[in-house]
Amino acid sequence: MARIVMKFGGTSMAGMERIRNVANRVKAEVARGNEVAVVVSAMAGETDRLVGFCKEASALYDPAEYDVVVASGEQVTSGLLAMTLKAMGVDARSWLGWQIPIRTVETHAKARIESIDSETLIAAMKAGQVAVIPGFQGMMDDGRISTLGRGGSDTSAVAVAAAVKADRCDIYTDVDGVYTTDPRIVSRARKLGKVTYEEMLELASVGSKVLQTRSVALAMKERVRVQVLSSFDEPGDNPEPGTLIVSEEEIEGSDMERQLITGIAHDKNEAKIVLTRVPDRPGIVASIFGPLADAAINVDMIIQNVGHSGIVTDVTFTVPRSDVARSIDVLEREKPVIGFESIITDAEVAKVSVVGVGMRSHAGVAAMMFKTLAERGINIEAISTSEIKVSVLIDEDETELAVRVLHTAYGLDG
Amino acid sequence: MARIVMKFGGTSMAGMERIRNVANRVKAEVARGNEVAVVVSAMAGETDRLVGFCKEASALYDPAEYDVVVASGEQVTSGLLAMTLKAMGVDARSWLGWQIPIRTVETHAKARIESIDSETLIAAMKAGQVAVIPGFQGMMDDGRISTLGRGGSDTSAVAVAAAVKADRCDIYTDVDGVYTTDPRIVSRARKLGKVTYEEMLELASVGSKVLQTRSVALAMKERVRVQVLSSFDEPGDNPEPGTLIVSEEEIEGSDMERQLITGIAHDKNEAKIVLTRVPDRPGIVASIFGPLADAAINVDMIIQNVGHSGIVTDVTFTVPRSDVARSIDVLEREKPVIGFESIITDAEVAKVSVVGVGMRSHAGVAAMMFKTLAERGINIEAISTSEIKVSVLIDEDETELAVRVLHTAYGLDG
Repeated sequence: MARIVMKFGGTSMAGMERIRNVANRVKAEVARGNEVAVVVSAMAGETDRLVGFCKEASALYDPAEYDVVVASGEQVTSGLLAMTLKAMGVDARSWLGWQIPIRTVETHAKARIESIDSETLIAAMKAGQVAVIPGFQGMMDDGRISTLGRGGSDTSAVAVAAAVKADRCDIYTDVDGVYTTDPRIVSRARKLGKVTYEEMLELASVGSKVLQTRSVALAMKERVRVQVLSSFDEPGDNPEPGTLIVSEEEIEGSDMERQLITGIAHDKNEAKIVLTRVPDRPGIVASIFGPLADAAINVDMIIQNVGHSGIVTDVTFTVPRSDVARSIDVLEREKPVIGFESIITDAEVAKVSVVGVGMRSHAGVAAMMFKTLAERGINIEAISTSEIKVSVLIDEDETELAVRVLHTAYGLDG
Repeated sequence: MARIVMKFGGTSMAGMERIRNVANRVKAEVARGNEVAVVVSAMAGETDRLVGFCKEASALYDPAEYDVVVASGEQVTSGLLAMTLKAMGVDARSWLGWQIPIRTVETHAKARIESIDSETLIAAMKAGQVAVIPGFQGMMDDGRISTLGRGGSDTSAVAVAAAVKADRCDIYTDVDGVYTTDPRIVSRARKLGKVTYEEMLELASVGSKVLQTRSVALAMKERVRVQVLSSFDEPGDNPEPGTLIVSEEEIEGSDMERQLITGIAHDKNEAKIVLTRVPDRPGIVASIFGPLADAAINVDMIIQNVGHSGIVTDVTFTVPRSDVARSIDVLEREKPVIGFESIITDAEVAKVSVVGVGMRSHAGVAAMMFKTLAERGINIEAISTSEIKVSVLIDEDETELAVRVLHTAYGLDG
């Protein structure tokens, strides 16, 4: 017997026929003797419809009332799933965010879960009742409804799993797991049996949008074992396993033959900014990146080119493409302080990353990457590394080529 | 300065353009220096959509989860109206049923309001904040959402008005007031300035479906002054007055010239049942109507014809048309006890009623009714009277004719 949290997205909840499929899957989990909580999204399209009303009401709508409006989408699906389960003979009830309660802090429409009162929930689950919980919603200290921001239901599911001390949090999606790279680019991509939280964070944040980054970070912090699996497989007695996202220790203990590299990710949402002829003096870096940070612009890769004369240098970095215009504003304003000559921007770039926990204990990962790309004539514009990742910035047109050759070079082809 | 509760139905809340119209109307009321609470229905069609999902989920859906699902419709409109008001510069916030709370008892999907904690609500209204309250919903003692049954928003509005001690409860509808009779039948029908609760109850329960009967009964009990008025008039400085529903004392004090008769109502939802050759012995009436009452069948008019031989008699009565089949079931089961010969049913009947508080102190109202109908050859099949009403059962085909000649006979033509 295990305690499982199951999470279903909007596509799985779109209409009664699909909700009945979800109910069958929940019923099968109960039949296996497990205690089950289910976290649900709104029907696909419903949140957009509700957000549309709010935007029509006012461009500057009140975020507290926005939460009242949009939280209703998950309220509806939680009630519908609970009644469908009951009609199938499975004891169940819906628990709205304020009923549990799921307490949130910070700001309306972008709230953060602070705590979940799990006592009643656990008692109900132990008594054999399925707890159906609307994702995305919670309650502020003042008793008003809050929501977690778009896609927040993954985070709700992980938070509930942590609160009820679930053995596993199964997140049903429209893919059947996490792959070594995007299968639409590399047909030889393989589904991974297990990845670590850290790897998943890198894979998610650089473009493998299977799970919300935020939910993975929470799972890592709370040590929640997350499984990503397909909601389209037949819900049989032996469901197809997906990808488990777990701690490094669990992987090391179970998977001696694990690859050095877990996957190749890519991201086309960055743009390159070059400041030319920046005086090479102490404090210069702070004078550039301090104001950008104050403007909440997320600078990713930074490279300082060799100076032209020894006392002036080019500074290259990347920002999200959507922040290029704002970045230029900030930098132009700071020009007298920084003292650069000009700003050159290039949005036609892509970041390709090699990710793997194994690389911490192995040398040569970066060297192989540079060699592999050089052999295909792919020029590297910038490099950044972390403990489990090496990223390079390249010409956007060469993204798919780079991903494919790296996938082969690191022995990831299936 | 007055304290006003305004109530808007689903047609008035159908889409953001109409919600903006409602907001303008609320803003005008605030501008007149009044403290305002607004009770809103779901967008027209939305409750049907949500009920449709529940029916699709299961013919025997769980009523507690049904409440979770359908209450969302009013949650959405309350949030949207509050944000629209705020965007117009009118301080406002939504108060969901569980946030106030509006406490209900009895059963899910058909709950009854027990109490409303009005302290916080009154404080907010006194501070100049418009309270926007979703109609139709409340909270059970166990903290779960409840709903009042279809059309319950009128009742919510009256209950809120009673709780906050409002000077008036304005119910905006698709008609501009209560008329002496159905204007679709009698073009000379006049809008009434004032009616008593008792008259409104009789007019509502016999077919003038302007307000829910239940909401009028509550208004009478709590002495809430209700105004019915049109939501389609322009919301100007001097809004067109509707019909005030108030106590008899208030009318007597203000309207010396009041008519004897207030209006003519009709109802085509009854059916006639005749039990033939019932033995005329003590206790026989109880043996017929006791079992019908136990089956929750609402018997309205009862007439005992003269017996055929002095010891047997025909018993005639009316029930709602939808209960005819069930009534026959009950009566056939009781046949050995009652001892009648046969059951004759007739659904082609209509009840026409003359209503007026004035008739208590006047003779001749019934006599004029019988004479007027006889002059047009309209046969009376049964008669019932109350303190403020005389009703007759006639052939359904003659309904409109009867309403028109009575409207003229009692001097109601405009």
